[in-house]
Parts: sequence; structure tokens; C-alpha cells
Amino acid sequence: MEDLWNIWLSELHKKHTGFTLKIKKIIYSGQSDFQQVDVFESYEFGRVLVLYGSIMITEKDEFIYHEMITHIPLCVHTKTKKVLVIGGGDGGAVREIVKHPSIQKVTLVEIDKMVVDVCKEYFPQVSSEFDNPKVEVLYADGAKFVYHGTEKYDLIVVDASDPIGPAEVLFQKSFHEQIYDRLNDDGILVAQSESPFYHQETIRKMYKNLKEIFPVVELYLASIPTYPSGLWSFAFCSKKYHPIRNFDRQYFAGLKLNTRYYNEDVHEAAFRLPTFVRRLVDAG
Amino acid sequence: MEDLWNIWLSELHKKHTGFTLKIKKIIYSGQSDFQQVDVFESYEFGRVLVLYGSIMITEKDEFIYHEMITHIPLCVHTKTKKVLVIGGGDGGAVREIVKHPSIQKVTLVEIDKMVVDVCKEYFPQVSSEFDNPKVEVLYADGAKFVYHGTEKYDLIVVDASDPIGPAEVLFQKSFHEQIYDRLNDDGILVAQSESPFYHQETIRKMYKNLKEIFPVVELYLASIPTYPSGLWSFAFCSKKYHPIRNFDRQYFAGLKLNTRYYNEDVHEAAFRLPTFVRRLVDAG
Repeated sequence: MEDLWNIWLSELHKKHTGFTLKIKKIIYSGQSDFQQVDVFESYEFGRVLVLYGSIMITEKDEFIYHEMITHIPLCVHTKTKKVLVIGGGDGGAVREIVKHPSIQKVTLVEIDKMVVDVCKEYFPQVSSEFDNPKVEVLYADGAKFVYHGTEKYDLIVVDASDPIGPAEVLFQKSFHEQIYDRLNDDGILVAQSESPFYHQETIRKMYKNLKEIFPVVELYLASIPTYPSGLWSFAFCSKKYHPIRNFDRQYFAGLKLNTRYYNEDVHEAAFRLPTFVRRLVDAG
Repeated sequence: MEDLWNIWLSELHKKHTGFTLKIKKIIYSGQSDFQQVDVFESYEFGRVLVLYGSIMITEKDEFIYHEMITHIPLCVHTKTKKVLVIGGGDGGAVREIVKHPSIQKVTLVEIDKMVVDVCKEYFPQVSSEFDNPKVEVLYADGAKFVYHGTEKYDLIVVDASDPIGPAEVLFQKSFHEQIYDRLNDDGILVAQSESPFYHQETIRKMYKNLKEIFPVVELYLASIPTYPSGLWSFAFCSKKYHPIRNFDRQYFAGLKLNTRYYNEDVHEAAFRLPTFVRRLVDAG
């Protein structure tokens, strides 16, 4: 059977290079109002969620992205009460956020209900906190939600897919300006910001814009094997707190989080950038 | 033409996952006494050297590996005079080593003359220092050279290919014991030690063995997009110097190396490990 049914998922990261993964089984394939939504069982990375043709999460390595997009800001602003997550319909970011005791409410705004439904069904370890009473899930356009709303947040996490397809607007300056207005005076924005190897123009533009909006803007890195190039970046943007000077090591130690990637050392190392990455951020 | 001649080089990293790269042209393909040696022109990474079916270097990202395997030890032991490089027939490590003013002699021991010849011909920016009078190139089995020799070194760099094929012996404990004997009392060994995502058993064994030989053994990391998983590890093993406590920032600043990956921040960050990597090293 394995020899006859020989399917490889090949995701091209640039036009001429990519990542390839052998598939055991197609678990789900659907078309939502926004995008193609596929779930595969792979040999090497367990179940894989693919949106708009891009690998979003795999069972085996999703912990890295989700730990790094949440615990970095939450171990800096340790009194965070209200969090807004834009995108992140798999639930992984929410799962990590509610581990922090100060959290009172997490609002997740996902444009595509099919993503949430599919993750509840096929990724129960990732979507495990959607029923937590502190968590509210809204199906709406994240950009419009930010524009029309009035509520303020301590932390906004932009857990978007790539800047092609439905998430394109979430990489634009006008969106980040509106985010700024929806943050409290000590609020933090964290947003995924693509690969420093493959998406250099996106990073240059995005950080130039962010630095025109926020007084503190720092790029940090994580190694994620199923993302393009294996090296991924995140933007830490803040009105007040600095990601290193205000990192609360004691708070983190007290949490006993049992993380598999994030730790005190990683928190500080993630902001120390290879020269070519430093130049991308400073170029703006 | 491009549409008709459609060749993709797919390197499998584990049985069921890999990296794929579109090829513009086959530049060289030969069989040495030891292995298949291929050079391709790729669209995304420039020229690519493939040994025994594994990507060794590409023009676009070789700087990362070569900066990290050399400047880390050389900015710790800043009086290094004599260096032995085992493998490294492309010349990239040698190119970086001779940038340090204390260096008097670099001996490169490469088992496969075809690798050196091919790199001289097709990778002139990598093999650029083979004619430097401080550099001596020997074609010999690295393990036997270490076993039979008597000369002592300040730094030994094991720039080996994967532990399958001709480099297998370079990952074994008996080889590292002999390396220890060939180092001066303040000598350092640096060896590439595979991917923490894909080669966990290799890393566990290798570090367990190294810790039984050297008083200082630390793993450090670098992100290399064309290597398996994008995350690569190196073993820093030393008789005396600690890679962080003895790192000489002033020495590095004075060098004005014009590196594109390595810098003072990266030196310190590279040793701060994600939890799952820390556990691999501590497991031994």
C-alpha cells in the first residue's frame, strides 16, 4: 500500500526551492469562503494543516511557533489581563496564553470558521482551550474588527498566515496603526514576520513601518523546521516595555511552564540577531 | 528551454521529508575513489556542491556554516597559531581561519582530492585561500592522520560530511580521544554535530562521548537554510577555555571581519539552547 500510494506534499517557498513531505493519508480537504483548507497525515511530522497551499502547523513542531509568539510578550508584561489574537484559528496561541495566571480574557478573531472547526476536529491538542471560559472566539475580519472596535488590550497577537491570500491586509501599515490605538499605554503587539532568508523585502518594509508607529520595535527569531528556510521571525512592538530589559526571569521560573523550546536563555538569545538580519531591521 | 528542462534536486533529510531545489544546469558530475561529487547551478542558491547525495555548500548560504565553525573558537582562543582542519575540502573554513592575525599555519587534511579540485574550479570564492603560504593541504584519511601524527594544535576543526559514507569514523569516540591527544593544553576542538531536529540520536551519543573526554563541552547552533531542518549544531570542546566566559569581545571588534552572520551577539546567543536541545546534550 505504502509503495503504491506515494504522495508527496511539496511546498515551494520561493519559486525554485521548497520543502517536501511524504503523506500517509489525506484526512480532510475543503474549500471555505476564504481559502483551501487541507489536513494531511504525514510520516515525519504527524498531522499537517495546510491553508491556501502553505503549511500552517504540524503536530510535531507547532509547539515552537506557539510558545515563541506568546511567552515572549507575556514574560515581559506579566500583568497582562486582556489579549486579542488576530488569526490563530488553530488555537495554539490561545492554549499557551491561558497558562499565564493574570489573564482574564482572550478574544480570538478568526476570519475563517472552517479553520477553527477543522482544528477542533483534527488537532485536539492544539485547539484544547477553545472551551476555556476565559476564551471568546469571534468569526470576523481581523482588520475590520480592530478598526471598528473600541476595547483596549494589554497584548495583541497577530498570528496571520502569509501576506498572500486573506491575511495580506494584516501586514500593512494602516492595520498596525489601528493596532496601536487598540493597545493600552503599556500594551504590546507581537506579529509573525516571515523568514529572514526568503522574505527580506517584506521584513524591510514591515519594520520600517512599525518603527514609525511604536517606540520599541525588536525582531526576534525561532527555528521552525516546517516553515520556509527553517528560520522564522516575529516583531515585538511595544509602547513601554523592552523585551530584554523588562523580561521577568523570576516570573517565568515561577510559572513552571514545561515548555519544550522557550526558556529564559532562549528569551534573551532570540533577540540577538545575525548580521544580515540586523541589517534588514535597521534598513528601515 | 526552462520549461522543458525541469530538474529538481530533492535531498531527503529523513526518509519522508526533505529539501527541494530547482536546477538550472549540471556543471560537474564525477565519481571519486570515495564518493559521488556533483556541482549544480541552482536558481535560488547559486552553485551547489553535493557529496554522497547531500548538499555540502551553496554559494548563497555557505558563509553561515564557515563563519560559525571558525570564528567562535578563534574569538575565544585569540592566540591560536596552529590549526588542523579535518575535511573541509571546499576551503571555506580555511578562508575564515586565515583572517585571524595570530595564525601561523593551517593544515587541511581532506580524504578526497576531487573535492578540492572541484571547489578550486567551480567555487573560487570559497576555495580562495588554498594558495595562501600559511595553508598546507594534505590528501589523507583524517582519522589516520590524527592517529599517526605527533604534532600538536591549538585548534582542530572537524568539518566533516554526514556520519554516513566516508566521514562515519569522524563521529566516533576513539577519533575524538585521539583529537584530544593532538591538542595543546589550551586547545579547542570544534566539530559539526548535525541537526537537533533530525539527528537526535547522533547528538545524544556524540555529546555523551565528548563529555567523557573534554572538561568543557558545549553545543552551539546556527540557522542554515540548505541543511536539514534549517537548524544546525556544532560541538565546542575544550581543555581550558569556556566559549562564553573566555569570549574576547574586544578582540572581535578590533578584527573588523565584515561577517554576515557571526557577530558578538550571535557568539553568545548561539550557546543558549531551546529546551529540547538542552535535554539532548544533558541526556548523556
